[in-house]
Amino acid sequence: MTALRGPVLVVGTGLLGTSIALACRRAGYDVLLSDVSPEHVRTASGLGAGRPVEPEDRPQLVVVAVPPDLLGEVLVHALTETDAVVTDVGSVKTRPLHEVAAAVDPGALGRYVGSHPMAGSERSGPLAASAALFDGRPWAVTAHPTADPAAVALVEELAERCGAVLVRLPPEEHDRAVARTSHLPHLLAALVAGQLADAPGAHLALSGQGVRDVTRVAGSDPAMWQQIVAANADAVLELLGDVRGQLDDLIAAVRAGERDALGALLRRGVAGTHAIPGKHGGPVRATASVFVSVPDHPGELARLFADAGASGVNIEDVRIDHDPGRDTGLVELVVAEGSTQRLSTSLESRGWLTHG
Amino acid sequence: MTALRGPVLVVGTGLLGTSIALACRRAGYDVLLSDVSPEHVRTASGLGAGRPVEPEDRPQLVVVAVPPDLLGEVLVHALTETDAVVTDVGSVKTRPLHEVAAAVDPGALGRYVGSHPMAGSERSGPLAASAALFDGRPWAVTAHPTADPAAVALVEELAERCGAVLVRLPPEEHDRAVARTSHLPHLLAALVAGQLADAPGAHLALSGQGVRDVTRVAGSDPAMWQQIVAANADAVLELLGDVRGQLDDLIAAVRAGERDALGALLRRGVAGTHAIPGKHGGPVRATASVFVSVPDHPGELARLFADAGASGVNIEDVRIDHDPGRDTGLVELVVAEGSTQRLSTSLESRGWLTHG
Repeated sequence: MTALRGPVLVVGTGLLGTSIALACRRAGYDVLLSDVSPEHVRTASGLGAGRPVEPEDRPQLVVVAVPPDLLGEVLVHALTETDAVVTDVGSVKTRPLHEVAAAVDPGALGRYVGSHPMAGSERSGPLAASAALFDGRPWAVTAHPTADPAAVALVEELAERCGAVLVRLPPEEHDRAVARTSHLPHLLAALVAGQLADAPGAHLALSGQGVRDVTRVAGSDPAMWQQIVAANADAVLELLGDVRGQLDDLIAAVRAGERDALGALLRRGVAGTHAIPGKHGGPVRATASVFVSVPDHPGELARLFADAGASGVNIEDVRIDHDPGRDTGLVELVVAEGSTQRLSTSLESRGWLTHG
Repeated sequence: MTALRGPVLVVGTGLLGTSIALACRRAGYDVLLSDVSPEHVRTASGLGAGRPVEPEDRPQLVVVAVPPDLLGEVLVHALTETDAVVTDVGSVKTRPLHEVAAAVDPGALGRYVGSHPMAGSERSGPLAASAALFDGRPWAVTAHPTADPAAVALVEELAERCGAVLVRLPPEEHDRAVARTSHLPHLLAALVAGQLADAPGAHLALSGQGVRDVTRVAGSDPAMWQQIVAANADAVLELLGDVRGQLDDLIAAVRAGERDALGALLRRGVAGTHAIPGKHGGPVRATASVFVSVPDHPGELARLFADAGASGVNIEDVRIDHDPGRDTGLVELVVAEGSTQRLSTSLESRGWLTHG
C-alpha cells in the first residue's frame, strides 16, 4: 500500500536536497529540481538527480531543502502555489511551523509536515551529494496536531524510501532533542576551539587526538550555524543556562579542591557517553583495537586487509595514523571486544607486527 | 655523542610505563621494571619490556610513570634512594616539581627533569602497551631553572629514542598549554556528555557523529582525570573563568537575537580548529573524502584497498560506517584534496559505487 507515487519536487539542490533527489531516483520516483542557482540545478540534474521543474508539473510531494532563514518563506510559497504535501529538512522544526501557520489557511497547514534527516557532511553543494547519505541514519518526522494523517504518512514514506530509520517526534520535542544532541555540543566545541585561536604555537604543539575530536564540529560553516542556533533559541538557552550552573559548580569544586564534586561531574560525563545509542540506533557494542605497524608504501594496506579478512574477524572501524616523515604508519583495527586476540594472532602469523 | 647508556628503570608498568620500557628495549637499552603490582611487572616483563629491578641495580635514568596523586612521593623516593637522573611522565608538571623541591636537597633537585609524552589510549594496563606509542608524537620536556643540563640532555634523549618529537617548555608553560589543549576540552566534553545522561531515548535517537566526537574523551577514567584536574587547578581555573565569561556573552547574544555576536563566537571557533597543527606537528593538509559502498562480507574491504592501491592515490585515513542490519556498508576514504577524482574514477572503473 504505497501512498508515495511521485513526482517529488526538491527545492534547494545543495548537499541535502540533491542527496534526497538521488535517493528518490534510486527508489524509482520521478524527481523535479528547483534552486535559485540554475548552476546547482544543472549540476544536480547532471548527476542523475532528476530534471528541472516546469510550470505544468504537478508534484505529489515537495521537499524544501533551503537554509534556515529562508525556510518559512519557501514553505509558504510551496503550500500556496501547489496542492502537494510539503515537507522541509531543516535542523529546527517549531519556527518554520509557526511561520507557516501564521501565513496559510488550515487546509494548506494540514499539508505541511516537517522532517529532519540526521545526516550531513562537512562539505556542501550538490557535488558532495550521495543517494546513500541517509542509509541507516535517523530521520525525524515531526507532525503537528493539525497535520493531515495522509500527509504524515507520505513524509514518513519518503524517509523510509531514502533508506533512513524513521523517528517520530512532535516539533517541540525534536527541537529540545537537537538542542541537546547537536546545538549545545556545537556551541561548547566552539568555545573550546575559540580558546585555541590565539594560543602560542608551542602550546598548540601539545594538541592530541582528544582536542581534535572535541573541536572538529566547530569547523563547520558559521553562517549556517548562526541561523540554526537563532532558530532554536529557546531550547538552546534552556540548556546553556543548565550548563552555566554546572560550570559554576565545577569552578567552585576545582577552586575548593572538592574532589568528590569534581568526580561526580566527571562520572556523569562517563554516563552520558554510555547513553548515546550505537551508530545505527542499536545498543553500543563493546569494541577493542589491534594496532598494526604498516610500511608506508602502496599495496601494504590491501595486504593487511586481505590478511585481516582471512582471520574471519569483522573489522568495525579503521583509523590510520600516517606520518609523512616516516616509513611506517600505525593502523588501528577496531573489532568486537574479545576478538582482538584472534585477530592479532592471525596477523602475527602472517608476519605483521601488532600491538595492544 | 650518546649520553643515555642505560640501564633505564621504569617505575609503574601501566600503559605508559610499559610502552616506554618497550620503546627503550627497541632502542637497545637495558630496562629494569618496578611496580606496586608484581603481576604488572610479570606481564610487562613477559611482553619483553625488561626485567624486574634488583636491589644491586644502578640505573642511569629513572622514569616514574605512576598516577598523579603518587608522583611527588615516588619521585622523592627515586631521587633520594638513587643517584640517577629522574623524570616522570605525568600530565601536570609544576605540582610534582614543587613537591620534589620541598623535599630534597638542591643536588638531588638538579637531577629531576619532568616530561610528558602526549600519547595515550582509552585502554590502560601493560597489555595495552606498545613500543610504537610515541612514534611521531609530541613529548614535552619541562626543565626547571636549577636542573642539571646533563640531566636535561638525558631526558631529551629518552624522548627522541622513544621515537617522539621533542617539545621544550618550562613547567608553568606546559601546564598552561595542557590546560588549554587537554584539560579544558575534557571538562567541557564532560559537561556536554552529562547533559545526555538522563535524556529521553527518543531524544538520544537523534545523536549524530558530531556529539559522539565532542563527548568521546569524556568516557575516560574519571578517577584519573579528577587527579589531573586537581593537580593543575590554577591553570584550569583561569581558562574556566574565561569560558564562563564567553558563555555569559553567548547566552546574552542568543537571548537578544544578536546575530553578529553569535557569528563572531562561531567564527572564532573555526579559527581555533585551524590553529591546531597537523597530527605530527606539520601543517594541516587539506583532505577530501570519497565514499564507497562496500558489501558487508569478508574480503570486500581487502578488494577495495587493493583497488584503491592500484589508483596510486595515498589513503590518509579511513572510516567505516558499518550497519549490522544491512548488506552494505559505507567506507570513507580520506585523501589529499585534489585526488578524489582520480581515486573515484579508478574505483568506478573497477566496479565500485562511489559517492561525493
